[in-house]
Amino acid sequence: MNDTFLRACRGEDVEYTPIWIMRQAGRYLPDYQEVRRKVDFLTLCKTPELAAEVTIQPVDILGVDAAILFSDILIPLESMGMKLRFLEKKGPVLSRPVRKMKDVEALRTIKPKKDVPFVLDTIKILRRKLRKKVPLIGFAGAPFTLATYMIEGGSSKNFLHTKTMMFSAPEVFHSLMERITETTMEYLSAQIRAGAQAVQIFDSWAGALAPDDYREHSLPYVKKTIEALKPLGVPIIYFVNNCGGLLELARTAGADVIGIDWRVDIGKAITKLGKGVSVQGNLDPLALFADERVLESKVKEILKKGSRARGHIFNLGHGIIPQTSPDMAKKLVQMVHELSG
Amino acid sequence: MNDTFLRACRGEDVEYTPIWIMRQAGRYLPDYQEVRRKVDFLTLCKTPELAAEVTIQPVDILGVDAAILFSDILIPLESMGMKLRFLEKKGPVLSRPVRKMKDVEALRTIKPKKDVPFVLDTIKILRRKLRKKVPLIGFAGAPFTLATYMIEGGSSKNFLHTKTMMFSAPEVFHSLMERITETTMEYLSAQIRAGAQAVQIFDSWAGALAPDDYREHSLPYVKKTIEALKPLGVPIIYFVNNCGGLLELARTAGADVIGIDWRVDIGKAITKLGKGVSVQGNLDPLALFADERVLESKVKEILKKGSRARGHIFNLGHGIIPQTSPDMAKKLVQMVHELSG
Repeated sequence: MNDTFLRACRGEDVEYTPIWIMRQAGRYLPDYQEVRRKVDFLTLCKTPELAAEVTIQPVDILGVDAAILFSDILIPLESMGMKLRFLEKKGPVLSRPVRKMKDVEALRTIKPKKDVPFVLDTIKILRRKLRKKVPLIGFAGAPFTLATYMIEGGSSKNFLHTKTMMFSAPEVFHSLMERITETTMEYLSAQIRAGAQAVQIFDSWAGALAPDDYREHSLPYVKKTIEALKPLGVPIIYFVNNCGGLLELARTAGADVIGIDWRVDIGKAITKLGKGVSVQGNLDPLALFADERVLESKVKEILKKGSRARGHIFNLGHGIIPQTSPDMAKKLVQMVHELSG
Repeated sequence: MNDTFLRACRGEDVEYTPIWIMRQAGRYLPDYQEVRRKVDFLTLCKTPELAAEVTIQPVDILGVDAAILFSDILIPLESMGMKLRFLEKKGPVLSRPVRKMKDVEALRTIKPKKDVPFVLDTIKILRRKLRKKVPLIGFAGAPFTLATYMIEGGSSKNFLHTKTMMFSAPEVFHSLMERITETTMEYLSAQIRAGAQAVQIFDSWAGALAPDDYREHSLPYVKKTIEALKPLGVPIIYFVNNCGGLLELARTAGADVIGIDWRVDIGKAITKLGKGVSVQGNLDPLALFADERVLESKVKEILKKGSRARGHIFNLGHGIIPQTSPDMAKKLVQMVHELSG
């Protein structure tokens, strides 16, 4: 098996810089769209054979060095008792958002084997099918990021309800965060026990917080989650979107790898993060719309700076966007391998 | 006149920390809504008596230390030959976006007296009415921020067209930036000559760029704009939204004041910016939904850290949101004055 990804996570020597791409299984791939013509998004997440199929697609098509479970960070919220739908243009909708203590008290903790057997089954199928290929990454949303969806009832522009609760009913907010953290720990532990060889915690909305608020309202729960997972022995990646003001704090969460977005210089980020952690990132997803020559110069720059980290896993700084050409994604993977090898 | 704002911009002594609020004349004020019931947004921008009226409202209601011209950063794009509309829920729409060199070549440079007399007239009315009150700030969008609207045809999530042009047709992009810069210099110079006592350049979307791209594609045009304005002698504020990864670069633009968003620690920002520049910011706009006690502790923290800057102008880290209670905004102004006085 190609284990460059796992070795880079641990800061061990690698022959070349491994790469995977956030949302690498997704709409930009015609092969994925073909599967989606048969089933809706949630059904795809919940059908192990199909979820495994689309998970493997980018491994075969692009040649990436890791696969990531095809799923959605909001899946465990259903197990907590929320009703989840995905609307074609609007994105996720959670009816009856969490606003009061009684809403928090009505939430359950996930029982993965009972509540999300399809996730564990997908992982088992994937480990079998990926055996001679690449490692499998499991994932979950970070507690704060999940809280925003639960409180807002979906995506949000300015997190009015989330921050109102945080700033004016902190006891309700912290109770909610405790419950989400419990579920996240159970959920990720179960993924690892089912076979996930690394996990990524997505803090997609951490960057909406002022650093002091991040320290108080998000970070402790990420720390707690990571502490619970550490004994299971797989690398833990903590992706902090819009991390510019949060890097030094995020470093203290205890992850093996910090994933960073493209809005920061990866060289400066590595200086701030130090030698105890590997770094994942951080090409602007829109660089895949550049001339090949421009793309190459950007990739070189990131590889050069990234080589100063304990370990470097190449990735985009955020998910690949649906309009991307699969050929350019493939070219990126080749470039990273060739230029770093 | 209360000139604390101007003195803080220049790093001179002040009796207390001055405060104004981005979007302080706006939808959260019933008095503003009352005016808007009579006219649509663009008509309001173009009717000097009304624009002056809503500009003064927050000075009288909240007691802020500066007024900012009521207008919109997209106004000068009409003078460049684009058709601008504001749709109630969708925001600004610019028909026939700029995509090719011929679109760039069709653009004109603003002639302020002919094209936007209403802006200059509003400033003149305001200077008369504000004479014994507070200074008047003029403003414009930064060239990159304006370019995103022109290229996308409105707001954007991931700046697909802007970055595609930037990365694959840089000569078109730079021609466009040159033209926007010309117009911005003319537009701001005219505002200053009409009486604006300071100007703010809003780089609302700079934070969507990787630092290397910001350095190459945005910063030179801001520098050029600021250089052209310097001889006119008024303080220049450069607001860089989502500035976390860009502060050291933004510092080199040459502004007297750097405005920062709430996602960075103002203490760390001041360390990075050094003693040659004043700082404006940076309370999370959503902190106005906090308990008064929580709000106070946040304000104290910002004031304490802000006191280490050459000069500190208190502000939110982004525009006040429409759902804000005017009472809380008023309380914020009082708090800043009392706690820093």
